[in-house]
This record gives sequence, C-alpha cells and structure tokens, in this order.
Amino acid sequence: MPEQQGTLDFRTDRARIDQLDQSIIALLRQRLEISRSIQQRRTETGGARIAEGREEAVIGRYRDALGGTGGALAETLLRLCRGTEPGRTRP
Amino acid sequence: MPEQQGTLDFRTDRARIDQLDQSIIALLRQRLEISRSIQQRRTETGGARIAEGREEAVIGRYRDALGGTGGALAETLLRLCRGTEPGRTRP
Repeated sequence: MPEQQGTLDFRTDRARIDQLDQSIIALLRQRLEISRSIQQRRTETGGARIAEGREEAVIGRYRDALGGTGGALAETLLRLCRGTEPGRTRP
Repeated sequence: MPEQQGTLDFRTDRARIDQLDQSIIALLRQRLEISRSIQQRRTETGGARIAEGREEAVIGRYRDALGGTGGALAETLLRLCRGTEPGRTRP
C-alpha cells in the first residue's frame, strides 16, 4: 500500500507511529524484566508465581483506559510477562 | 495476594510497573489517535481503511522485539487502532 494516496501523504504520521512503537516496546521490555524478577523471587521463596488479583487489576486498568480491546491487550501483555508463549505453557 | 511475601516486599517493583503501565497507556492513546486519523483520511478519499502490508510490518516489529507473544500483542494493538471491539466488526 503506497505511503501516499492521491494528494495525501502519511509518511509523517507513520514515522510518528514508528517512534511511538519503539517507545512502547522499550517500556514493555522494562515491564517484562521487573515482572519476571518478581515471579522469580516468588517461586524461589515457595510462593505462587502469579498474583491473580493483581492481574485482574492490571486488566481493569487497561480496559478502563482503552475499552474492551484494551483489556484484551492487557491479557496478552500479562501472557508476555508470564513467559507463556502461545500454545506452550511453562512450568 | 499480599504485597509482601515473607520477607519479600514487592511494593517498589509494583509501583514501578504501575508507572510503566501509565506510560504505556499514554503512548497507546497517542498511537490510537494518529492511526484513526490516517484511517479517516483514507476512507474520506475513497481509499482502503487498512494497509495490510503496513500491519504485517508492525506485527513483525513487535514479534522481533518481544517474541511470538509480542506478535500477538501487536495484533491486539492493531485491532484496538482499527476500533473493532472483540466480537463486533466495524464497517
């Protein structure tokens, strides 16, 4: 699909989206790291790896801010942080 | 699930995750706004609302950075930007 459509030029907008995506990915990586460190310390001390109530609060946060699909996005984000790739479950 | 577990105190880590979530949500909102403005201008000029090739590139970007679940997260992000709530398709 061309970056331009007739007289419309989306390049500036797309460059801005690309920047936003890089920033979002960087923040997701930071979140992933902290979340995994918490999970590791929990399991090392014999606790449950995941805090159900905590996950519900995170899903609610994204849903309140971004609507139903925001909640779905948070569920995928939590799956990312749990490290459970789609189709495979980790011990 | 207690914020503390035995001698472990997750409050600082959780506060950091909460901050990261607020920043991620703010960036997602900006992205949503730009994406919707592009889609609107496309349709107003008789073009296709969605650029398939562009979406594949975005999914690849998140997958390369965050693995398979990162790709799934990008697909949900694109659904959010299209404004197609789960279970409902927009014209």
